[in-house]
Amino acid sequence: MIQKVLVANRGEIAVRIIRACQEMGIETVAIYSTADKEALHVKLADEAVCIGRPLPKESYLHIENIISAAVLTGADAIHPGFGFLSENTKFAEICAGCGIKFIGPTAEMISLMGDKARAREKMIASGVPVVPGSEGKLTDSKEAVYLADQIGYPVILKASAGGGGRGMRIVWKEEDLEKAFLAASSEAANAFGDGSMYLEKYIVKPRHIEFQILGDSYGHVVHLGERDCSMQRRHQKVLEEAPSAFLSESLREEMGRVAVMAAQAVHYENAGTIEFIVDAKGHYYFIEMNTRIQVEHPVTEMITGVDLIKEQIRIASGEALSFRQEDIRFKGHALECRINAENPHKQFRPCAGTIEKLHLPGGRGVRVETALYEGYQIPPTYDSMLAKIITYGETREEAIAIMERALGEIVIDGIDTNLYFEYQLLGTEAFRTGNFDTGYIEANLAAILEEGVGSV
Amino acid sequence: MIQKVLVANRGEIAVRIIRACQEMGIETVAIYSTADKEALHVKLADEAVCIGRPLPKESYLHIENIISAAVLTGADAIHPGFGFLSENTKFAEICAGCGIKFIGPTAEMISLMGDKARAREKMIASGVPVVPGSEGKLTDSKEAVYLADQIGYPVILKASAGGGGRGMRIVWKEEDLEKAFLAASSEAANAFGDGSMYLEKYIVKPRHIEFQILGDSYGHVVHLGERDCSMQRRHQKVLEEAPSAFLSESLREEMGRVAVMAAQAVHYENAGTIEFIVDAKGHYYFIEMNTRIQVEHPVTEMITGVDLIKEQIRIASGEALSFRQEDIRFKGHALECRINAENPHKQFRPCAGTIEKLHLPGGRGVRVETALYEGYQIPPTYDSMLAKIITYGETREEAIAIMERALGEIVIDGIDTNLYFEYQLLGTEAFRTGNFDTGYIEANLAAILEEGVGSV
Repeated sequence: MIQKVLVANRGEIAVRIIRACQEMGIETVAIYSTADKEALHVKLADEAVCIGRPLPKESYLHIENIISAAVLTGADAIHPGFGFLSENTKFAEICAGCGIKFIGPTAEMISLMGDKARAREKMIASGVPVVPGSEGKLTDSKEAVYLADQIGYPVILKASAGGGGRGMRIVWKEEDLEKAFLAASSEAANAFGDGSMYLEKYIVKPRHIEFQILGDSYGHVVHLGERDCSMQRRHQKVLEEAPSAFLSESLREEMGRVAVMAAQAVHYENAGTIEFIVDAKGHYYFIEMNTRIQVEHPVTEMITGVDLIKEQIRIASGEALSFRQEDIRFKGHALECRINAENPHKQFRPCAGTIEKLHLPGGRGVRVETALYEGYQIPPTYDSMLAKIITYGETREEAIAIMERALGEIVIDGIDTNLYFEYQLLGTEAFRTGNFDTGYIEANLAAILEEGVGSV
Repeated sequence: MIQKVLVANRGEIAVRIIRACQEMGIETVAIYSTADKEALHVKLADEAVCIGRPLPKESYLHIENIISAAVLTGADAIHPGFGFLSENTKFAEICAGCGIKFIGPTAEMISLMGDKARAREKMIASGVPVVPGSEGKLTDSKEAVYLADQIGYPVILKASAGGGGRGMRIVWKEEDLEKAFLAASSEAANAFGDGSMYLEKYIVKPRHIEFQILGDSYGHVVHLGERDCSMQRRHQKVLEEAPSAFLSESLREEMGRVAVMAAQAVHYENAGTIEFIVDAKGHYYFIEMNTRIQVEHPVTEMITGVDLIKEQIRIASGEALSFRQEDIRFKGHALECRINAENPHKQFRPCAGTIEKLHLPGGRGVRVETALYEGYQIPPTYDSMLAKIITYGETREEAIAIMERALGEIVIDGIDTNLYFEYQLLGTEAFRTGNFDTGYIEANLAAILEEGVGSV
């Protein structure tokens, strides 16, 4: 069994991991940058080592310093949390090379799933649906027309060298395709010096639905149900829930089976997430696998009773999973609101500052994950997430009602937050009815912000 | 359905009730004494009415003022919480007379169960075991010998007019009884001017185990399992849990059935608690019924998923229970630590003061019920309870581990608390093994306080 864990992260996820270790009787080592000397994770851990200056590359991404801290303190395992080095193949390799257990999958699994093209090939070979599209670059517009005819309209043309929307066209019918191809290719050639294109089916108004996976070192893989993360703004999740209000029971079962199949295809070990997009008709497509714990993992914990961080540690210790798929019971409904230091009225601009006053909610059905305390100075260097408010109810309606009252109790003075934005979002008809997609927030931003669409 | 609830209480239970109402879409009215102007329950409610000066009899016990506040604000129901007027027959009657729904049982039920002699008779008539003893006063020591022979030794002699241990004797064998009777009776005569005695079986090292009851207006009564409240100091509960580590599954079932039978015997409506003492062999005896919500109700909520306050409101609204006994599922284990403003090293002397710094625990499995906030001035007038920390784990061991780490995170500066005492208590071998009775804390106080019996 692991005796001492170095937590290679900061903020609420570092606190979350330290707490799980404490509950398991495992010693903890915090690492921190000079900007984080007064951070909560430093105060809670048994030991703490300063590993460098504020910039991530000088501290939380500085592999040598982190490994040195582990060796120095005699930590026999490292938990990477999310972000930073959590999906860094080299870091996982170096840990293994130093005889320090990396609490996560092997470097090979991280590498394979981190390469989107290889992951896609692997999934196709394993019978997991992916977004239909061209295998590599298109030779010309004729091939595009042929392919689009096979997979069906609408399709999206993307520049192979592209990004940021340039060299990209959505095409709704065949007669527009050739013209769009030429225009996009020319745009891409101008922008990136490379006019080569590829094509994918364009999924209209998709939901983002992901399945939590746990796999042990003995080939057992289970899923712990889905999370619906369709409430996004610029690909950042804003409000997550489990279970999804969208999935039918049969689709849930099928996608769960497929998610397990996907993880088994790579002999996956530890916690991971299979992300799908799902169209309005319930067609689902693998988009990627996250080979780490996720921000929104608590909603899964609330409806299953499983502590995912503890399971990660047990698996890394070489324990077999203590439950099978059929042992997992889903009960109730959970939501998570991400409270960020940002101003929704100023393009969600992040802000730093000092927490002058802090009052967090409590009571039945409320779980708070945060590293905040009154008087804490938020450094400007890192992620803007301040706290996750998770609520659990016997029904979706109850979870929403608890979230509304919990958000209403929060006092965070000294900085801007998106608290009211989250509150408004909860009250939208789209959220209440469960009828929303990944484009909802962008398309309705002004209404959510200004018009008080909230029902409360 | 009830539209607007006046909460006739203060502190954490007032906050708890206000939150439940908010989640149900019910308006709330807080009442407060002049000492509680800045109290959290006042800030959270939709409306607040000052009802008098700090002393309870001038405010929270002042029936006329409370009824006036309800009439003034148009509240159609009053939730009494616990303590204060929650078991006051007259208050329940006046509410009914004014057309205000009292959220609790009827005045008749409160009256019947509040009279310990009548309640005992009713239970005997209904086949519920009570502590065996004399029916009323003993005529002389001969009757005492005859009765003690019937119920078995040890027995306890008590002064009818007594209290505080005077005129009380525990008798372990027949040859000591006559002498003890004469001595106790004479002591009672001196102390109370009345030497009359009664006799009961003396339960050695009992557990305090109580069953949560819900009954609706249509004759349906269910129990929601037991709470073990054997960790007491001077009849004050200190650390409660559900389920009990002591009960066998068959005893649990039997006592649950008997508890329902006891409640049905009085056609009980709303939430109530049947309290038993249980001896080491598993013989159990009804001691009393609490006709109100209890401080320790959250541990039951954690293992059943039922919100007891919401159920109280639904029942008072005339709704039928939405579940039957067989629908209630028990899962996991919950603990509650009562954090009080008191100094365990000075005979647990309560203290008042200002909360200069406050940091409450969060994360998985932690629920906090409190009315504290940083800067809050605790008035010296009321109960010393500051907060209830409730933890939930899949097993008893996990719930304890979570409680230990949660207590370790708490910072309450400015006043004395029993935080470290609770922490030490959790670590005792007695608590760990579940082998304790209501006398444990008193008998081991020095060791708990001084010797660090904690395993951590």
